[in-house]
Order: sequence, then C-alpha cells, then structure tokens
Amino acid sequence: MKYLYQDTYWERKNGPIFFYTGNEGSIESFCKNTGFMWEIAEEFGALIVFAEHRYYGESMPYGSGSYDDNDKLGYLTSEQALADYVDLITYLRRNGTEQHRRTVGGAGNVNVTDDTFANPAIAFGGSYGGMLAAWFRIKYPAIVQGSIASSAPIWQFTGMTSCNAFYNVTSSVYMKTSTECGLTILKSWSTIDSATETAHGRDLISLRWKLCSPLKNDDDVLKLKEWISEVYVNLAMVNYPYSANFLAPLPGNPVKELCKPMKNHNEQTFKLLDSVFNGLNVYFNYTGTSTCLNISSSTPSLDAKGWGYQACTEMVMPMCSNGKDDIFENKPWNFEDYAKYCQKTYKVQPSVDIIEKIYGGKHIKDSSNIIFSNGLLDPWSSGGVLYNITKTVTAVIIPESAHHLDLRAANVKDPESVVKARKFYKHRIKKWISHYRKYSLRDQVDTFSA
Amino acid sequence: MKYLYQDTYWERKNGPIFFYTGNEGSIESFCKNTGFMWEIAEEFGALIVFAEHRYYGESMPYGSGSYDDNDKLGYLTSEQALADYVDLITYLRRNGTEQHRRTVGGAGNVNVTDDTFANPAIAFGGSYGGMLAAWFRIKYPAIVQGSIASSAPIWQFTGMTSCNAFYNVTSSVYMKTSTECGLTILKSWSTIDSATETAHGRDLISLRWKLCSPLKNDDDVLKLKEWISEVYVNLAMVNYPYSANFLAPLPGNPVKELCKPMKNHNEQTFKLLDSVFNGLNVYFNYTGTSTCLNISSSTPSLDAKGWGYQACTEMVMPMCSNGKDDIFENKPWNFEDYAKYCQKTYKVQPSVDIIEKIYGGKHIKDSSNIIFSNGLLDPWSSGGVLYNITKTVTAVIIPESAHHLDLRAANVKDPESVVKARKFYKHRIKKWISHYRKYSLRDQVDTFSA
Repeated sequence: MKYLYQDTYWERKNGPIFFYTGNEGSIESFCKNTGFMWEIAEEFGALIVFAEHRYYGESMPYGSGSYDDNDKLGYLTSEQALADYVDLITYLRRNGTEQHRRTVGGAGNVNVTDDTFANPAIAFGGSYGGMLAAWFRIKYPAIVQGSIASSAPIWQFTGMTSCNAFYNVTSSVYMKTSTECGLTILKSWSTIDSATETAHGRDLISLRWKLCSPLKNDDDVLKLKEWISEVYVNLAMVNYPYSANFLAPLPGNPVKELCKPMKNHNEQTFKLLDSVFNGLNVYFNYTGTSTCLNISSSTPSLDAKGWGYQACTEMVMPMCSNGKDDIFENKPWNFEDYAKYCQKTYKVQPSVDIIEKIYGGKHIKDSSNIIFSNGLLDPWSSGGVLYNITKTVTAVIIPESAHHLDLRAANVKDPESVVKARKFYKHRIKKWISHYRKYSLRDQVDTFSA
Repeated sequence: MKYLYQDTYWERKNGPIFFYTGNEGSIESFCKNTGFMWEIAEEFGALIVFAEHRYYGESMPYGSGSYDDNDKLGYLTSEQALADYVDLITYLRRNGTEQHRRTVGGAGNVNVTDDTFANPAIAFGGSYGGMLAAWFRIKYPAIVQGSIASSAPIWQFTGMTSCNAFYNVTSSVYMKTSTECGLTILKSWSTIDSATETAHGRDLISLRWKLCSPLKNDDDVLKLKEWISEVYVNLAMVNYPYSANFLAPLPGNPVKELCKPMKNHNEQTFKLLDSVFNGLNVYFNYTGTSTCLNISSSTPSLDAKGWGYQACTEMVMPMCSNGKDDIFENKPWNFEDYAKYCQKTYKVQPSVDIIEKIYGGKHIKDSSNIIFSNGLLDPWSSGGVLYNITKTVTAVIIPESAHHLDLRAANVKDPESVVKARKFYKHRIKKWISHYRKYSLRDQVDTFSA
C-alpha cells in the first residue's frame, strides 16, 4: 500500500491526521488536486496523508498479478480499502512517520502506550473518495473523528435515487450554459447515426474527426457515442472556473469553451458534426499535442479497469437517459443486461443492495461528524446528500461548484460560495477535534496498564 | 445458515424483530436459555429469531468440510457472522417468514417497496453473543435499532483490561461463598501436584476420582488441572439461583453446592482431594448418570473447536492468574507462547488489536442504543462495560447475577435486581422502537420509486 505524507507541521503528541481516503486511481492525482488539505495543515498542526486505494496505482496486493483472476481481484472492495486505512492510521498514531522517527527517534518521541488514540483523524475525500470518507466515519467512528465527504454520491444506488437524475443534472449544466449547445448535443446523436450508416459516411467522419482508429462498423459508432457522452459528463464534473488538470488538462470554464463552437443545432449533418468535433477538441486536445482523437479511454488519469470491476460487484449505480428530460440518447437502465455484461467481462454477479446493507443507505442518522458537500453544477450531486440529516451529519450546497471544487486549492476565481464552504469545514473540523480531546480521551483514565 | 423463529405475535407491517445474535454453539442451546425474549414478544408484537453463528451447530458454509483447512475456516470471523445477520434481517423484513407467507401470501401481505425498513430490529445476545449484539449496533445502526448486550466482555482484550481481572472476579465469588472453599481450591493445585508425582499417586487419584482415562504422566495432570480450573469458572458463570441446564445440568446456586464438601483446607492430601472431587461431582455428575469423570471437555454444549480457532485469530483475550490475588495457579500471560500454540494448533497468527480496530475498543461513545448488562458474580464481568458511556450507551449492573441471568426466563427465585433490569430493558426497547418509527422512517419520504 502506497501513501504520501507531509509532516512538517505535525504536532506529534496530539496533532490531527488529515487523511485522504484514496479512490480509483494513482494517489498522486488526488494529492495534486486536493490543495485544501495542504492549505489548512499548518494552522491545525496536522499531518497530511494521502492513502492509495488497493488495486490502484502501485498498491497491488499481489503485485503485477493482482488483476489475474477473481481469487486475487476479489479483495478489491470498499470494505477492504477502509480496513487498510484503519491499519495505516493506527500505525501512524503509534509509530509516527518514518521521516519524523529518523529525526527524533522512538515513535517520534511519544509514549504510545497511553496515547495510541491521542491524534484525532479527519478523513477527506472527493467523489468515490468522498464516499469512502463518509463510510469511514460511519463504520469506524473510533478511528476517524470526522469526515469531509465532497461530491460523494452515496445515494446513487438502487432504490435511493432515480436512474435518470445523473443525466438530468448533466444536461441542465449544458442547457444553462447555452441552450443552443444543449440542443446541438441532443441532435448530434441521431446525426452521427445517419452520417455513419454507410461505409463512406464512416470514413468521412473518421477523417474529419481525426480518429486514431477509423470507424469500421456499428459497434465502433456505438463506442464513439459512448466516448462523447462520457466527455460531456467529465467536462461537467471538472467545470472549474480556472484552468486545471484533473481528468485532463483543461481551460477554465471548460463547458463554456466546449459550447462556443456549438452555436446552431439546425445546421446540416456535417456542419453540425464539425461543430461538435471543435467542441470536443477542448477536452481531448486543449494542449494541442494530440495528433488524433483516441476514443479508447475518456479518463486517462483514472484506472477504468479496477473501477469497472468495482462497478460490477458493489458499486452498481443505475443510470438512464431518455432524450426528453435530458440531452442524451434513450438508454433505459436494465439490471439483467448489466449483470450479463458483468458476468461476461469480470465473471462476477453485481449486487443491487450490498452498499445499502453495509453502509446504511439513507438511514445514516445514527452517525455523526460528516459534512456532505455538493456542487450543483456536478452531475454526481444527483446521488449526493443534499439536506441535513442531523445537527452533525450536514449537507453543504455550493451552487456554482462542479465536482469537489471545494477540496482544491484556493484560487482567485473561486466563487464566494466555495470560499464560505471551506471556512465552514475549518470551523467544523476544529469542533470535532476539540470535542474529541475533551470527551473521547477521557476513556483512557479507566484503561489499565496491563 | 440455520435460524429458528416464532412469528405468532408478529405484526408484519411494522412489528419489531427480536434477533438473537447466535454465538459459539448450536442455536438450540441459546434458544432454550433466553426466555426473556419469549416472554416479551407478545407485548411488542415481535418476531423472535435465533440466528445460528456460521461454523457452529448445523451452519457450515462448506458442509462437513468446513473445518478442513484455513481456506475454508478463514471465513469464521465475527465480521462475517454479523454480515450473515444483516442478510437475514434484510431478508425477513422484505419477505417475512415462510410460515407467515404460507398463510397470507406474498411477502406476508406487506408492500415491501416502501417498507423494507419498517420493522425495527432489536439485537439480543449473551456472552460472545452479547458482544456480537453490541458490535452489531455499533457497525450496522441502520439494520439494528438497539441492542441488549448481556455479559458481553467487549473489553477483555489487550490494553483494555488487566489480564488477572477475570480470575480475580472468579476467585471472589468462591471466597464470598465460603472462605474455606476458596482456600481449599487454592491449596488443591499444589496438593494435586504432590499427590501425582509418582505413578502410584497418579493411579490412586485416577481411581478415587473415577477418571475415564487414568493419569499417565505430567501432561495428563496438567490437563486435569486445566479441566478443574475451567469447571470452577463455568460454575461461577452459571451460578443461577435455581436449577438449570445451560453448560451442564446443575442444581440452584451450584457454587454453594460445590463448596459444601470443601470445608477444611487444612485436611491431609487425599482427604482434601476427596473433598474437591465431591465438589466437582456437582458439575459433571449432578444427574448421577456419569459412570466416570471425563476431562476431555468442560463445556459439552458449546463447540470448543470453533471457539479455539476464533480465540487464535480475532478473539485473543489475555488471561493470567498468580495464586495471590486469586485462588488459581500462577500462570502469567505470555503472548509469544500463545502465538506459538495457535500456529501449532490452527496454523494462524493471533492478532492483539484487530477487535479494537474493527469495533472501537473503549472508544464507543459515538454509538447509541446499547445496554451492557453485567452480573457481578460473573467472571466475564471483568471485561464488561460497567459504567455508562453516554445517555444511550448504558451499563446495567446486577449484583446478584451470574452469566446473563437477565436473558433467562423469569423465575420466582430471581433476585430483585434482575427483575428490575428486565423492566428497564423493556422500557428502553420501547423508546428505541418509538424513536425509530418517529424519526428514522421519515427518510423514506425522500426516496424515489425508480
């Protein structure tokens, strides 16, 4: 298991551990895009830790053979990842960091017999990492004292959220940015279909869109449309007000940029498709270095393979669109078809309710110290917690924010709402820590020194 | 997985599920010795369920081969057992009982789409079953709304309780019953040693004590002493005020009965040992049907094999005695030796802290709706929660009670303290259920019918 840390500001005796619950990708990517933790660490005397999720990045339980078969891959679950995080936090509490030990000796000069629990831990996470941060507190309240769960769609599961909610939100982002843009996208699906009916048409599109592999048949066309659809979703997710590089290197307000060429949905077939291609250019070729459009992956910085497996076991998130309430093609959700796909691809049977059983679904009022933050520009807000559950399990709505903008470093272009949100997090984290120091450690008075 | 149920009184629509979290033995044994649940079910309109713990009784995940090797036996953990209980409760909420379905059809005539969570669940358990009941609520507060954890030594683990506490309590029970009895026991260990030094002495003891297998060597003598030691502990555990059959068929106040012949610790070797044998008779031959004393098992109704494995993996409970603060032999706790024994016997490495990591150890203030009850006559009260943690995680002390007397059926010989305790449980359970109906189900207003 790989983890990154920064202990410059850590007060070893009882300073908090700010712990990023890594999600589906190399930990470096999250480390670079979660500036908020770095900015507040000094004030809190905190240790910063970014923990890599098992089966991603370099954290391979069985080395290069980790994905070989389900006997090995079966240990890729959210519960196992959380158990790893429990081990790591416990280890750091007892032993300190290697860097610190090297400087001051022992366990970083702290008597660990009494003080194993002296360092409060605060979990941070965005997206699936945010789900993990929330679930971490829900399942291990003795290990983690509070969680900032940003853009965490913990309700994007069967029976909790309507399957069309996700594409509804995505569509509204485009429609609000530019109605013409939204309508162009909506129209583009059938336009692509008709343009690629013949071999000649497929060649023409392959050429005009500079595809790395030309479209050969209907399957390729389907893949192209799926890739485009994912790009729209991803762009909405990282629709930050300034230039950033999370899923891909992008300009500020990328949805607006993408929409610029998509001005008229009444254009003829190839003119309309040219405008779409010009828009997509923003996503796949903002740096101007791509020589052709590669539709094999839409999120190069995340590991699609591991997540595909997780989505086919625990993380079954029903999604559907209909082209009426949204700007996407008509695609109903069909669990049986999905199960067949999972059987074929990973030889596993997806579970519709294991997440609800394990983590409580909508019944989380007995938990505490969690902030669920959601940006209303973020497609994933559809499955997020958008209202306060209790006084300490609270929702923060950031109207102008996309996917976990709040966890990123401060930027002059940040909307006021995200600045306020971050202040609120700091306030709450202080409360959690002082409450922990005041009440929880009292238990230790009664412990024996056996 | 085997489970027993009684649905005569169950109000299918929203009546509670009284759920016994089965422990290390056949479920029938717990079903017969937990009369409290049966006595209050009608008043609550409750379904009674006794769930058998995996790898015990008939609940063998791999049939008769379940204990064959660690690839199979490795799934014998408390977490896996709790996950089984989650599945069973969810299944019963959705589908009702087979009996009920047969009578009224469907899922017992309830629309399960909206009402999956309508039946509150209350966990009951004694001893390890009580630990499971408490941990069940700690880990799955959405599934189980409250727990009665009777005689649950959740703190009988490394760093939480002194290793000699268990034998201290046991000893005090004997000393309080009769100082002479306690001193006779204390003296008996060295007396047995000296009496069995020679082959002739071993033969003599084997004959006088009617041992099924005669003592052949020092190892046999060691086993004999271990067996006797366990008998004292077991008798203290089931030291009920009336005749019962939990670990063995016994008279009322069995410790008092055992102590009757043990009148004078200054007796000579064989007279003293005869008096000990006469005392032990109460435990192994109360029914008068045993023709010889079999020291191969001290708890015939529990499954020592499965528990031995659990005690060598998660359930590592440090125990020690010194013959000064207690009436037992000097036996320090040595983890390294214990680990060697576990390696040799089960090929596993025991963990000193996995229970604390998973279930929170002493840091359980963020949980709610748990009653920890302990009898002060019970050796296991040494590792129990004896003080209130919060307003809803509360301790009940029953001075005159042995091991989970409170969960047994009412008896005219019950001390007043246990009668009061049961009233308090009923009161709390009502509160938990009404609170759940009032607040938790409100969440369902926001659920979609996807």
